[in-house]
Amino acid sequence: MNKLGIIAGGGDLPRAVALSARQAGREVFVVALRGSLTEDWVADFPHQSLSIGEPGRALKALKDAGAADVLLAGKVDRPKFNEIKLDAKGVMVLPRVIAAARRGDDALLRCMIEMFEQEGFRTVGVAEAAPGLICGQGPLGRFSPGAEHQADIARAFAIVRALGALDVGQAAAVCEGLALAVEAAEGTDAMIARIATLKDNLRGTPEKKRGVLVKALKPTQDAKTDMPVIGVSTVRNAAAAGLAGIALEAGKSLIVDKAAVAAEADRVGLFVFGATL
Amino acid sequence: MNKLGIIAGGGDLPRAVALSARQAGREVFVVALRGSLTEDWVADFPHQSLSIGEPGRALKALKDAGAADVLLAGKVDRPKFNEIKLDAKGVMVLPRVIAAARRGDDALLRCMIEMFEQEGFRTVGVAEAAPGLICGQGPLGRFSPGAEHQADIARAFAIVRALGALDVGQAAAVCEGLALAVEAAEGTDAMIARIATLKDNLRGTPEKKRGVLVKALKPTQDAKTDMPVIGVSTVRNAAAAGLAGIALEAGKSLIVDKAAVAAEADRVGLFVFGATL
Repeated sequence: MNKLGIIAGGGDLPRAVALSARQAGREVFVVALRGSLTEDWVADFPHQSLSIGEPGRALKALKDAGAADVLLAGKVDRPKFNEIKLDAKGVMVLPRVIAAARRGDDALLRCMIEMFEQEGFRTVGVAEAAPGLICGQGPLGRFSPGAEHQADIARAFAIVRALGALDVGQAAAVCEGLALAVEAAEGTDAMIARIATLKDNLRGTPEKKRGVLVKALKPTQDAKTDMPVIGVSTVRNAAAAGLAGIALEAGKSLIVDKAAVAAEADRVGLFVFGATL
Repeated sequence: MNKLGIIAGGGDLPRAVALSARQAGREVFVVALRGSLTEDWVADFPHQSLSIGEPGRALKALKDAGAADVLLAGKVDRPKFNEIKLDAKGVMVLPRVIAAARRGDDALLRCMIEMFEQEGFRTVGVAEAAPGLICGQGPLGRFSPGAEHQADIARAFAIVRALGALDVGQAAAVCEGLALAVEAAEGTDAMIARIATLKDNLRGTPEKKRGVLVKALKPTQDAKTDMPVIGVSTVRNAAAAGLAGIALEAGKSLIVDKAAVAAEADRVGLFVFGATL
């Protein structure tokens, strides 16, 4: 197996991918994106910390490390383009990057992937590098969605698809037909948190759970770069917001630490379900 | 002109409609929806306060008042169906209302309109009863959107249309291609307020304004019942969130108190624009 270069942003996904690849016997080199990756797990891997304005140094670091495959994972903060320090390559690609950023996150990611591929790297997705993270079919844990949740799950998937086609967000929550919340730039955690601020007749409570959270790949997205991800904190937040469960698209979404997610879902009484659409 | 019966929920719109109709020389009778309408302006009009569970009493009050035309306006809280007191007519229509509510706000409104029409009333929209509130073409106030806002306005309209087709919400904010926020059950004010909580490189500030708010009629909506509305507080909130302006669809949206909205927009340096799509 080729050595895997991981361009790592924030959140739990990059670490999960790195661990999973290493457990599979693969060598890993991490380019930690300064400002976006704030966790300290990279210390356990050969790595270099670089700013998003230094693609030249990133390409060199990956080549020097002998990484032939490259994977992008984690949340990347949009930089203030007038404030970032740029290396020579950064100056060259900046106009293209800014133009892509204006078209949305997906365009930005595609632009970065193209750059790596033009430099001779093979870009790989999480599904290939860490297949153990892929959401399977059916329930994870003890609970499954009930008949009363089917319509909400279908409606939330329809909303996420429509939003996703416009590169808006990956998540939506629906309770008995009512769209409680829809994700844009605030991210899934903030979106879930505001459900608890809605009037209590619109939503559930931790005692009497109602409504579902759905996360799904945008139709415009490459499964390689931006599959939706949930983890233990997503389950915990959904429970605190009074939701009854979480539905993901089987095969096209990721679960960081399945055992822990299943245990937490069982503990708080939520379903986590891989749906086939 | 027929006497106008106004079924009035919360917010500034019902009062603006009532005033506008009265100024045009029309008699008005208001059914104030208890729990939803909390303002005290109804005291200035012949009215009766009723709960949403009392459609029988509402129909009788309107008939007794001699109102032949009926208009629904304002925000209506979704009741807890197991807690509201029902009159006989309420008991009869409840199953239909609950079924409609599950399909979304628009279905709920259509269901209520049907009920009034079956009882022999003519339902009218704000455009007919208070044409002075309709958003015109072009800028209201001194400022107009610049060339840099055109793409954001177009993108925000596209997002609102897509969401609206699924009966999710009426509003979205976009800044340089990025969807900052999208409205669901929280309402426009809460949606605008959270823009200020996003990282400051994604959005504008009151000093350096960026991004636009768009409100538009859902494609599924009847212009009669649920045209998007803005008022002075919308302009104030948008300015506080660092937005550069507000775009509405000319002829298909409402502005409560145009003179005050124009003055506030001029004061805070925002554009309020009626777009033709």
